[in-house]
Amino acid sequence: MSQAAGPFDEYVRARRRLVDEALDRFLPAPPACPPPLGDAMRYSLFAGGKRFRPLLALAAAEEVAATPGLQERPVTPGDATRLALPAACAIEMIHTYSLIHDDLPAMDDDTLRRGRPTLHVAHGEGMAILAGDGLLTEAFALLGREPSGPDAALLARRMRTLAEIARAAGALGMVGGQAIDLAASGQAAPGDGPGAAGFGLDRLRQMHAMKTGALIRVSAVAGAIMAGGTEAAIDAVGDYASSLGLAFQIVDDILDVEGATEDLGKTAGKDAAAGKPTYPALAGLDRARALAAQAHEDGRRALERAGIASGRLHEIAAWVAGRRT
Amino acid sequence: MSQAAGPFDEYVRARRRLVDEALDRFLPAPPACPPPLGDAMRYSLFAGGKRFRPLLALAAAEEVAATPGLQERPVTPGDATRLALPAACAIEMIHTYSLIHDDLPAMDDDTLRRGRPTLHVAHGEGMAILAGDGLLTEAFALLGREPSGPDAALLARRMRTLAEIARAAGALGMVGGQAIDLAASGQAAPGDGPGAAGFGLDRLRQMHAMKTGALIRVSAVAGAIMAGGTEAAIDAVGDYASSLGLAFQIVDDILDVEGATEDLGKTAGKDAAAGKPTYPALAGLDRARALAAQAHEDGRRALERAGIASGRLHEIAAWVAGRRT
Repeated sequence: MSQAAGPFDEYVRARRRLVDEALDRFLPAPPACPPPLGDAMRYSLFAGGKRFRPLLALAAAEEVAATPGLQERPVTPGDATRLALPAACAIEMIHTYSLIHDDLPAMDDDTLRRGRPTLHVAHGEGMAILAGDGLLTEAFALLGREPSGPDAALLARRMRTLAEIARAAGALGMVGGQAIDLAASGQAAPGDGPGAAGFGLDRLRQMHAMKTGALIRVSAVAGAIMAGGTEAAIDAVGDYASSLGLAFQIVDDILDVEGATEDLGKTAGKDAAAGKPTYPALAGLDRARALAAQAHEDGRRALERAGIASGRLHEIAAWVAGRRT
Repeated sequence: MSQAAGPFDEYVRARRRLVDEALDRFLPAPPACPPPLGDAMRYSLFAGGKRFRPLLALAAAEEVAATPGLQERPVTPGDATRLALPAACAIEMIHTYSLIHDDLPAMDDDTLRRGRPTLHVAHGEGMAILAGDGLLTEAFALLGREPSGPDAALLARRMRTLAEIARAAGALGMVGGQAIDLAASGQAAPGDGPGAAGFGLDRLRQMHAMKTGALIRVSAVAGAIMAGGTEAAIDAVGDYASSLGLAFQIVDDILDVEGATEDLGKTAGKDAAAGKPTYPALAGLDRARALAAQAHEDGRRALERAGIASGRLHEIAAWVAGRRT
């Protein structure tokens, strides 16, 4: 987040509050939801996440609604926010489940996340597996019921949004990328150049495009679809978000090398210690920084091609490029 | 399965073949799906499962289509089969993921399933977690895209089916029941009567209604919805399937006490050894058998109230009541 208080910071705070309130409302509550499961799901869902993906979904919906020529059927930016909110929340639930399962002893075996014990440390491994399963399933339950209404065109947009999110989160997207990551762990030693042990920059980019990129891309795509965007608008914000996701990942890898555990709220240097392939490990720090800057520039151009010359999506990209934690 | 070959056996074989072919077609394939993940998902999905839930979904769709007065909009039984097939397959994928995660060391810690090593034994714990996540996500990807078509009424039925399945599989259904089961493990010793350690018959029934009953109920409900059934038809086959699910669970518990590991294809006596509450443990074997017979009778009556006097759903109930493995 930018250090100076200002309109973007206020926007982010307001949208985060909106998302947090909606997540609390959308998530099943006791007594129908068994308390140990509900507690575990909420422990991770309300652990101080940045809400990056929901912000992206809402901003994409609002920009598509506010930009002339990008809509099949005009909606106001306020309606766009409301229409995209369930998808924004569902994506955050899916992101949170992926962190819970990724932290498990059989996966990354991480004990610290966002400055707190990971869920399996706090609530036990079995409950952590179930809380992840529950968040993933409840995300689709939410997408299946919200926003409700008799409008056939809206129903078609909701079904398309759901299908895009499922595809991005599944075997061809996030879960597939995690499987590649799991199978590849230990293949690249810190400092190895491109191609070391068969894991070069191209394969690293492909893995991240699946593991983290697909869900970031679909966040913007979901917002654009729910705001009634044209195919050109949906493609443009999707391409922007793909570049943003790449930049996000490279910055993440750089911070893992440079950052302190205290600032990150998770264990720093973990990737290198685990022998995981990273951009700094495969390309060096300087080239990794150049790749992040290039991705930032590619994203900016995708927006401009669609006529989105300024606004929240550009500000989000600047925040990703400049983040320190 | 009935020992005598006959029309019901032929029906079951034909529907299983249809489901197996559709599962193979619906599941993502290499190269887009990373091979280690695809192999792991298929290892469990094609492990010789009975396809009980898909059979139930297809039979419910066909009976609703074939019975006068049960449809909002008439479809032929053949169309009903085709329309319900994606939901039938999605439910089997969800059932399979639940078995994979349930078998994990942090959950039931089982090493044998359907006569073969469990997935985490064969492919590692991390890949087993991911294969479960992948199957769950792909189930919703499938429901989001199939059966496709421009028909607005069909789209509404598909979305309702998806929402019902997500609800049944989530925190208020299957995952919630597993969380209660996990929290309760070890509370009831074998031979303890009702109320032992706070886990009496009522609570056992509620846990199973969530853990296994909800997905069995929604199998029939999904079939009825996709066949264009009336609300009365959807409720009737849902009530039938709830009773069937209860009977199925009680018989399962009885077989765990009586059966041999070789016949079951999984470790017999496991529940008792784990101190899990079961119907025979809480009520005794004779009363457990009487409860199963009562559930069978309740299911039969639910069908008859809707005018389904004979046919596949009745035959499925008779098979559940009489099964030995």
